[in-house]
Amino acid sequence: MLFLARAVRPTTLFRPSPYPSARSTFSTSRFIMAPKHHKVVVIGSGPAGHTAAVYLARAQLKPTMFEGMMANGFAPGGQLTTTTDVENYPGFPDGVMGGELMDKMRAQSERFGTVIETETIGKLDCQQRPFRLWREGYEDAAEPTDTGDAVIIATGASAKRMDLPGESKYWQNGISACAVCDGAVPIFRNKPLVVVGGGDSAAEESIYLTKYGSHVHVLVRRDRLRASKVMAQRLLKHPKVTVHFNTVATEALGDGNLLTGVATRNTTTGEPGKIDANGLFYAIGHEPATQLVKDQVNLDESGYIKTIPGSSETNVPGLFASGDVQDKRYRQAITSAGSGCMAALDAERYLSELEAGIEEEEAAAAPESLPKAKM
Amino acid sequence: MLFLARAVRPTTLFRPSPYPSARSTFSTSRFIMAPKHHKVVVIGSGPAGHTAAVYLARAQLKPTMFEGMMANGFAPGGQLTTTTDVENYPGFPDGVMGGELMDKMRAQSERFGTVIETETIGKLDCQQRPFRLWREGYEDAAEPTDTGDAVIIATGASAKRMDLPGESKYWQNGISACAVCDGAVPIFRNKPLVVVGGGDSAAEESIYLTKYGSHVHVLVRRDRLRASKVMAQRLLKHPKVTVHFNTVATEALGDGNLLTGVATRNTTTGEPGKIDANGLFYAIGHEPATQLVKDQVNLDESGYIKTIPGSSETNVPGLFASGDVQDKRYRQAITSAGSGCMAALDAERYLSELEAGIEEEEAAAAPESLPKAKM
Repeated sequence: MLFLARAVRPTTLFRPSPYPSARSTFSTSRFIMAPKHHKVVVIGSGPAGHTAAVYLARAQLKPTMFEGMMANGFAPGGQLTTTTDVENYPGFPDGVMGGELMDKMRAQSERFGTVIETETIGKLDCQQRPFRLWREGYEDAAEPTDTGDAVIIATGASAKRMDLPGESKYWQNGISACAVCDGAVPIFRNKPLVVVGGGDSAAEESIYLTKYGSHVHVLVRRDRLRASKVMAQRLLKHPKVTVHFNTVATEALGDGNLLTGVATRNTTTGEPGKIDANGLFYAIGHEPATQLVKDQVNLDESGYIKTIPGSSETNVPGLFASGDVQDKRYRQAITSAGSGCMAALDAERYLSELEAGIEEEEAAAAPESLPKAKM
Repeated sequence: MLFLARAVRPTTLFRPSPYPSARSTFSTSRFIMAPKHHKVVVIGSGPAGHTAAVYLARAQLKPTMFEGMMANGFAPGGQLTTTTDVENYPGFPDGVMGGELMDKMRAQSERFGTVIETETIGKLDCQQRPFRLWREGYEDAAEPTDTGDAVIIATGASAKRMDLPGESKYWQNGISACAVCDGAVPIFRNKPLVVVGGGDSAAEESIYLTKYGSHVHVLVRRDRLRASKVMAQRLLKHPKVTVHFNTVATEALGDGNLLTGVATRNTTTGEPGKIDANGLFYAIGHEPATQLVKDQVNLDESGYIKTIPGSSETNVPGLFASGDVQDKRYRQAITSAGSGCMAALDAERYLSELEAGIEEEEAAAAPESLPKAKM
């Protein structure tokens, strides 16, 4: 198991856009061009975005994907580019590196004709049809840079981090934001682990981690857990769990390669402390990347895009959401990919109906083509 | 593009069970043994079943999978074992053979500790806890062969076939039951194609196929389409579509290697006909494999298992459904795999709550451990 920091993928990040014409179109804000129209636009380049693109491209809808330029803090490919060995994506019995998996998906999207722009969409207007999109840097222009008949939002989410001293050094070298993804990693086996958080996820992930670690320390900022009663009780009486109330992490400690402990502080007494630990898991929530649409589309109480359950449809016809930006429950690469496929098939049906509607309108506007006199 | 019949995978089909003890336990029906108990049982071995198994095994729940012995007419691995090159499963930019993909998933399930039994479950009783399961051949025994605290049904579905003369010869050599999967295959490019069916799926798939074929002939048994008005109108006025009413296919014709045409008969006049075609697509529906549970769980109006949308939960607590047996809308390998992951995470939560509940009951039954006197 390799478990090394891999925050950006230079090969992708600095890859020049294969579409020089598109880039030069917008290379100067003084040069006004007509917006570029696309049948369907995919925003985001994680498993959801690329799966949507593969399906749309195979259906000959010529999708354009904006894979982003460090959009939401991630290199193209999304959250998986910050991880290493992915063991639970089905089809790779020996595991696959997160970045490699995303490179494969990207190649697959391109193989079938997806146009990939290494740019970030900075603004989206869902009120007009076609939808209007502005590439980053052009948000203030009156005219959009691009338009689309349908848009798939696959902008993902990011685990909240604490920005502790030592955090970036030991990120993915002992620090993780996903117990389900990383709990089984050998460096955590029979070793003491620390979880930060007091909610249901924190409780659930702590109990999950007792399967691997020798002991799990849960750091809770306040004097009580926010988790549901059942989960809280289970956590508190688990023989392999110690809950430290009124305690925050202040620093990630390590030996230069791997995490070895967590410095703490008691929020009531101010007293510093230290817990030896080989793992530090953040369970303080996720932030869905909804900046582009949050004022235009229904969100749930946690800020995720609301879709009609079992579909990718939002409350805005023609706007579909897939992946972590609409999923706070499962959040796995494979569920995200599955939902990308759903979005593509939903968008395809939408475009097909749209086309039929336009044809019908045209027919209605041309009465000579309809034998109305015969009625 | 290879496009060859591949109905069974001998390597898997005739692979002896790696668990001789389990097999010998039930090698004679006269020898009564206590049922074998499993925390969680996965029934089915397509992408849904294996993805569930990978997640359950990584969560150390020691799942047992019954991969089936030609269950529902399929070799272990399910529908994908009857196809060849899969181009739309994300992560394989050069495509992957259906059988190979399933071999990879199987290896991944085993790597993390899934116990795979190459047997079919013939009977399931969801009324009692733990759930009771009978392996094929033991359905009449009073005692089940196995029991499980949770069960994931991932038994899949199968496209309805017509059993035409020539059908098995040209299956996957021109005949397909999935336009979305196979439409883009080179042998269909700019060639005449035939679709059988008069419903919404048939209309949708016919229009989809116009992107590839030179012309699409739709054979409709009756004198009208069952498809919705909008879809029917679109189909009827499409310049690349001819709808043949009162017409059935009677034989798949070919050159010994590939399909070259379809023999037809007019259902009104009895007149025979022939359509030159390089593709024959069945769009006459699917049959979800619900035999084990159809009298014990809620099904929708088409016979698919009903799940709470956006989850894998059925109306029976502890019984989860994933993959095509509960999905009539998307039915793709990747959506199926995604739903298998959902089922695993749902089952894991269920088992964790079940365990907590048992602990609470035990605590309540042992009053000395609770300081009740202090109240």
